[in-house]
Amino acid sequence: MKLLNTIPKYDGFHMPGEFEPHDGTWMLWPERPDNWREGARPAQKAFAEVATAISRFEPITVGVSQRQFLNARNVLPDDIRVVEVSNNDSWMRDCGPTFVKNADSVVRGIDWVFNAWGGLYNGLYFPWDKDDQVPKKVCDIENKDCYVAKDFVLEGGSIHTDGDGTIITTEECLLSEGRNPSMGKSEIEKKLIYYTGAEKVIWLKNGIYKDETTGHVDNICCFVRPGVVLLAWTDDEADPQYSISNENFEILSNATDAKGRKFEIHKLHIPTPVLITKEESEGVEAIDGTLPRIEGTRLAASYVNFYIVNGGVIVPTFNDPQDEKALNQLRELFPEREVVGIPAREILLGGGNIHCITQQQPK
Amino acid sequence: MKLLNTIPKYDGFHMPGEFEPHDGTWMLWPERPDNWREGARPAQKAFAEVATAISRFEPITVGVSQRQFLNARNVLPDDIRVVEVSNNDSWMRDCGPTFVKNADSVVRGIDWVFNAWGGLYNGLYFPWDKDDQVPKKVCDIENKDCYVAKDFVLEGGSIHTDGDGTIITTEECLLSEGRNPSMGKSEIEKKLIYYTGAEKVIWLKNGIYKDETTGHVDNICCFVRPGVVLLAWTDDEADPQYSISNENFEILSNATDAKGRKFEIHKLHIPTPVLITKEESEGVEAIDGTLPRIEGTRLAASYVNFYIVNGGVIVPTFNDPQDEKALNQLRELFPEREVVGIPAREILLGGGNIHCITQQQPK
Repeated sequence: MKLLNTIPKYDGFHMPGEFEPHDGTWMLWPERPDNWREGARPAQKAFAEVATAISRFEPITVGVSQRQFLNARNVLPDDIRVVEVSNNDSWMRDCGPTFVKNADSVVRGIDWVFNAWGGLYNGLYFPWDKDDQVPKKVCDIENKDCYVAKDFVLEGGSIHTDGDGTIITTEECLLSEGRNPSMGKSEIEKKLIYYTGAEKVIWLKNGIYKDETTGHVDNICCFVRPGVVLLAWTDDEADPQYSISNENFEILSNATDAKGRKFEIHKLHIPTPVLITKEESEGVEAIDGTLPRIEGTRLAASYVNFYIVNGGVIVPTFNDPQDEKALNQLRELFPEREVVGIPAREILLGGGNIHCITQQQPK
Repeated sequence: MKLLNTIPKYDGFHMPGEFEPHDGTWMLWPERPDNWREGARPAQKAFAEVATAISRFEPITVGVSQRQFLNARNVLPDDIRVVEVSNNDSWMRDCGPTFVKNADSVVRGIDWVFNAWGGLYNGLYFPWDKDDQVPKKVCDIENKDCYVAKDFVLEGGSIHTDGDGTIITTEECLLSEGRNPSMGKSEIEKKLIYYTGAEKVIWLKNGIYKDETTGHVDNICCFVRPGVVLLAWTDDEADPQYSISNENFEILSNATDAKGRKFEIHKLHIPTPVLITKEESEGVEAIDGTLPRIEGTRLAASYVNFYIVNGGVIVPTFNDPQDEKALNQLRELFPEREVVGIPAREILLGGGNIHCITQQQPK
């Protein structure tokens, strides 16, 4: 594996859309008991269900610490590859490599700087040194060269692309004090364009209410295909989410993408607010320096946090009346894919969802 | 990766000779300061030289702990793959998988039980739990199914095969109290045949004088090709090695292989005895439970501990007058291969040599 200090865009590389063909998927295995309740056992079950669902559509590799290797190997089906990849937590979308490809279908990784969603300013845990090595390890296993995006903090979940020149992101996250405080908006935009090979960045305002990632776009808005976006929504005017979603709707309504298209915007209603129960709160080890999981806290539940695989869409469900509506809406929007719902409360309890724990490797 | 409980021989699988074509080589990265002097820095340099030499001939992957990942990645050239594989020490020949293949060139691993060369009886360190997981990890990275040789302790360095039905091993090692004390010689022989797919086992008596592995065959005798063996030798009658080598010579002279051939035996003279210096001894951290490295101890130096790669032979040298003679003898025996000498004293100081730190994955 070569570590590259050049610029992907200048090298003819760009980030494909998630809906384009994959070589496979990467995940990490949850284990830290100060984030995942009951020693992470319920989360491991949920992650295994996600991995198993993905394995029906494409190859999947799960990275796991030495301590959890035998457990993960025993729990996960044979056709899921399990490899040792130390980590501080299991958010492959955010600490893993972002993959780019060129016209000859050469695929390379990007190793962004990872600082646990805000570093010493408002990061969610310390240290994050193992997470930050994940991209190099993934690329080396796959024999893919890897761009090193020096001095630029980014998580994969804070951007989405249509693979056709357009990036969407949120100001809440990318302009946060905890990411790249010394860089202005235009400088950050330039970095995004240089590394993802895009041409235009659409800036939404805020992410999902109470999203601990400082408003990652992948929980509130994503591409179905170029020109078509899904926006997390609520009709409840009393919900703080209402004004957030409306503001983003306005931005999208008035925007055009890199190719000059107006957006077709689909609203995907969020579930009834999901609150942490007493039992769930008490199942998490209390450690100074890790975000506490306090009873009654509202979680950032959203169906937008789904993951597109070859021929399928893996969607979080919350045992909520809204589940079926969301799944049916996605079936209409992805008529050529099988839409699979996976109960995801245990993933949500850790601070993210199915899109946050997966990472596609393009074909 | 499937874990298999069936018998390779019955499944039509056998272990190819090392001289047959490889897909690549596996190594592990040294780091434990209670075995490798000066925090393992000189050993890392020597291992890197071996890996770099091998990389000229075939793909090579080096497994490394989380703690050493960035160091190994920086020290090793780009074209060497570095992957995370926790370990207790760096002897891939002994703790790694033995690979077998079938007539359709399907390759599978064997996961023997590893107990650090003797377990609680006379093993060299405790614990060895991470070493024992290495075969599964290697196989999973490579998407190879893996035979689990339950309840059978074996290190890869304790057997050699001609790939044509014959295994050579030593009684000193395989009949040792520290391996499979509840099994008799014929039972052990049966296990070897079942797992390596061979037909006949040639039992040498003892390994190299003072070999801490309890006399691994790979330090004293190996195949050049079917019917042709190399035997570590000394002409010095005062050396305890003299009678050991002579006894094995007698055994080989009177043996026939699985195909009924008599052996062509070549003697490869050992170097002048290599003793641990004061400085070398003092460079090793003294820890109860790890074999101490005492000044003046004779090391089990032997040129037989070379490693055959696609188109090459990687041979340990000891800054000894015998070096050139050994290299030239090997050049005559392997006229179609490039013979490369690598200074290997730092590897020898840890208790083995180039063959002990490598593992071939057949094509």
